Amino acid sequence: MAPSHNSDIDQLIQLLSKLPGLGPRSARRAVLHLIRKRESLMTPLSRALNDVAINTLVCHVCGNLDTHDPCAVCQDGRRDKSTICVVEDVSDLWALDRSGHFKGLYHVLGGTLSALDGRTPEDLNIASLIERATSDGIKEVILATNATVDGQTTAHYIIERLKGVDVAITAIAHGVPVGGELDYLDDGTLAQAMKARKPY
Amino acid sequence: MAPSHNSDIDQLIQLLSKLPGLGPRSARRAVLHLIRKRESLMTPLSRALNDVAINTLVCHVCGNLDTHDPCAVCQDGRRDKSTICVVEDVSDLWALDRSGHFKGLYHVLGGTLSALDGRTPEDLNIASLIERATSDGIKEVILATNATVDGQTTAHYIIERLKGVDVAITAIAHGVPVGGELDYLDDGTLAQAMKARKPY
Repeated sequence: MAPSHNSDIDQLIQLLSKLPGLGPRSARRAVLHLIRKRESLMTPLSRALNDVAINTLVCHVCGNLDTHDPCAVCQDGRRDKSTICVVEDVSDLWALDRSGHFKGLYHVLGGTLSALDGRTPEDLNIASLIERATSDGIKEVILATNATVDGQTTAHYIIERLKGVDVAITAIAHGVPVGGELDYLDDGTLAQAMKARKPY
Repeated sequence: MAPSHNSDIDQLIQLLSKLPGLGPRSARRAVLHLIRKRESLMTPLSRALNDVAINTLVCHVCGNLDTHDPCAVCQDGRRDKSTICVVEDVSDLWALDRSGHFKGLYHVLGGTLSALDGRTPEDLNIASLIERATSDGIKEVILATNATVDGQTTAHYIIERLKGVDVAITAIAHGVPVGGELDYLDDGTLAQAMKARKPY
């Protein structure tokens, strides 16, 4: 903490240290950096936080975060409205969209099923996914949950629920990441990469 | 970046990624965390940033940052007004004050002398230090600049400038840090620890 008398700076340090990736030490460094860049960084950051806090909405269609509802992705006329990519979190949606390859729509589950943490299908946006998949015009549902036990359990549950719905169900490929060295990868990834090998 | 249409969230990510210790990836994580904790973290953080940006002053006596001038340390009646500890930056002042041992006053230089970066004595708060040291009642000046080449050069320069002033000049001890394992320390630290050895 800063000298204990100064409650304003202290409080700012405490709040910043609650961000993921920042501890008390880096929060103090950040505060000093901010005070040095008051006009160019601190005031704009305060305003941007306030703007996002007030204006951010959850898209009622896909679960993305945006300042409009439906979100920019759902409203974008150039996107392929026949494909839905299912992801766990908004961060996954952003990551896939940054990669720039996928031009369809998304569906954010809001997490995974988890027996341990007591998350059931009702806690996730699964009912709305089934509804979207059943609606006219959807041809493919791509499962892009994480390659974890919970992520794959959730994917399997969704496959079960989509039985009887007239859509193609696919899953993103698992294997050796681009640039990955075999020597540094875990056995599970290597086994999966070998199992899913393709003719060249 | 988030989907490029959403300029509010994008701008917040860009501003956050300018903080030391946060890159674009952790800034995105932080934004999602903030949006999830809108009431308890995001809005208070926006307010705290604004408060500190508006209210923070540089103490004209010692160079500390505070909402008052003179700062809380300089105004604290319980502190020993006969000792000044000289540090490079406000972060060093905070670090020493957290350790809770030193109960005197501070003087923040605002950096170090550096031939490479062209920082001369006029760029630092050295004149005001000499003035304070010359004033009645100051008995000791403790040099606590960093144990770097620039830090030690600056300390030597201050010693030169204080020649003829009737104060004791001391420097904080350099050696093996508490909890430090010899095996992991650099040669310079070990040499210094050996040179500065004391009878038990």
